[in-house]
Amino acid sequence: MSRYLTEDIDPDELARRKEIADEIAGAVRGLVGDTVRTEVDAAAAAEAIAHIEAARTILKSARIEEEAFGVRFNADGRKRTWGNAVLGARNPVAPPVVIGFDGELAWAELELGAQYEGPAGLVHGGILAAILDQMLGSATEHAGTPGMTGTLTIRYRRATPLGAIRAEARRERIDGVKSIASGRIYSNGEVTAEAEGIFILPRWARSAAADEVARKSVGDG
Amino acid sequence: MSRYLTEDIDPDELARRKEIADEIAGAVRGLVGDTVRTEVDAAAAAEAIAHIEAARTILKSARIEEEAFGVRFNADGRKRTWGNAVLGARNPVAPPVVIGFDGELAWAELELGAQYEGPAGLVHGGILAAILDQMLGSATEHAGTPGMTGTLTIRYRRATPLGAIRAEARRERIDGVKSIASGRIYSNGEVTAEAEGIFILPRWARSAAADEVARKSVGDG
Repeated sequence: MSRYLTEDIDPDELARRKEIADEIAGAVRGLVGDTVRTEVDAAAAAEAIAHIEAARTILKSARIEEEAFGVRFNADGRKRTWGNAVLGARNPVAPPVVIGFDGELAWAELELGAQYEGPAGLVHGGILAAILDQMLGSATEHAGTPGMTGTLTIRYRRATPLGAIRAEARRERIDGVKSIASGRIYSNGEVTAEAEGIFILPRWARSAAADEVARKSVGDG
Repeated sequence: MSRYLTEDIDPDELARRKEIADEIAGAVRGLVGDTVRTEVDAAAAAEAIAHIEAARTILKSARIEEEAFGVRFNADGRKRTWGNAVLGARNPVAPPVVIGFDGELAWAELELGAQYEGPAGLVHGGILAAILDQMLGSATEHAGTPGMTGTLTIRYRRATPLGAIRAEARRERIDGVKSIASGRIYSNGEVTAEAEGIFILPRWARSAAADEVARKSVGDG
């Protein structure tokens, strides 16, 4: 069901692949925004679609055999979540959220355009929930207790206009196998949404992580 | 900040625009999935990007002047949320979720592909939160008490593999200006996530709705 792959890719080659993925995904993100706003007629739409299909044919000419990117570990220990719906550099659905850390504080600043709209002119509350889920999960992992979301509660304080936002999160405490994290979204310096989450490493993921360690130890690239 | 537009578009013309939007957004959704999985080299990537940029130029040749689609009402009373990040027919970020109603039960069945991944092989918890936020909000609106999310709580019961899911929601009760709704996600017939939400129509949205009625009453198309 789930795929945690270990690969042994040269760091320079990895950087090259990252650059290509960023360029393609960046272009597709622009196309996504244009799709939301276009009012072309059927003839122009057909022309645009012909280009999109041509691009698809090229991209499909070389691709990973798996149905999705999964989570990949490189032999040097680096984790890649390039397909992730919130973080993924090569996933045009993702803004992407690029997380920085100041000690245990996870933070990200990003622009949310037309494709993230819910109420008119505002960011979709569900998109804010998705960003917060990821921020809290990443903060918990960064603090040394990786886990999957058990419970997530979002409190919406005020509307979040489309445009620039800042997101922050940190692990607050540990309670047995649970990690409790909190976070918030800022727009124009004001808190617009707050989140609290409980994160747990489920048994199947613990065994997948153990498998991962075993595979690494036999040098399976 | 927020745009609620009223337009007076002929129903046949609206159907034609919907068809064009569906076709473009459908092609871009396919491209998004291909972008996640591609492993093309720099030369092929450049070729694909040239096609993507050509498509962008065409789509930008005629577009709405607003920065985002907003929420549009037609003179015949129909509401269009075509740009919505979860529901939007013309938004390639949206799967899209197409909601049916059985009495007060809102339901949707859809496929979630590579671009909605979080943990390896699994749907991102934040994407499930976004779908549930929208399902609960739409159920509340359908029950006659539209509102924006005040609080949303998601409980993740088990992993949700990428692929087919079913989502359900309904308004449970009203408490003053608050509407309480609940919902869940099913994968292979099992509940994988549950949600409860409190929805409120904020003052600014109430006045926007009132403006809307006023604009309609003076025949502003």
